[in-house]
Amino acid sequence: MKLDFSKGLIPAVIVEDETNDVLMLAYMNEEAFQKTLETKRTWFYSRSRGQLWNKGETSGHVQHVRSMYIDCDQDTLIVRVEQIGVACHTGEYSCFFTKIV
Amino acid sequence: MKLDFSKGLIPAVIVEDETNDVLMLAYMNEEAFQKTLETKRTWFYSRSRGQLWNKGETSGHVQHVRSMYIDCDQDTLIVRVEQIGVACHTGEYSCFFTKIV
Repeated sequence: MKLDFSKGLIPAVIVEDETNDVLMLAYMNEEAFQKTLETKRTWFYSRSRGQLWNKGETSGHVQHVRSMYIDCDQDTLIVRVEQIGVACHTGEYSCFFTKIV
Repeated sequence: MKLDFSKGLIPAVIVEDETNDVLMLAYMNEEAFQKTLETKRTWFYSRSRGQLWNKGETSGHVQHVRSMYIDCDQDTLIVRVEQIGVACHTGEYSCFFTKIV
């Protein structure tokens, strides 16, 4: 089963393995995906900076990859992780702390 | 708090409210987002067909919106739903039924 990068970057939904909570969403290109597989930590492609980044590299808030799933279209990932510290750069546990409805 | 559509379509992570499981990911433009708010059912924008679609319109497998969250960048949504039937067009409960790691 191969990921389909033909439509561009692939959204990766990051889920805390212990709680099943969605922590964040970030994007991977093929290189970020390969580095995530190799290192068992999460790598993403920053759309604003146009470069790869390794989650937690400066903050220490790394994500250890426990398992990965692709969807039926092979163009979205779920990455189940053990989150060290917090996922959000604001200091919140999850990036989804704002309820709108 | 306003959603930021400046980077294009917004990914919406659909979560089953009862179980906390991620069911699928689809994209919204501003119209799909507004219709989701108004109808309390999920509407998406199909990238391949270039048009709006209402989840479950033909299959009956609708999603009743329970709550919605935006992330710290205001460019990703979590929609917590009550899923009627199954989420995936393949007949699976979730679109993420393929484990790759």
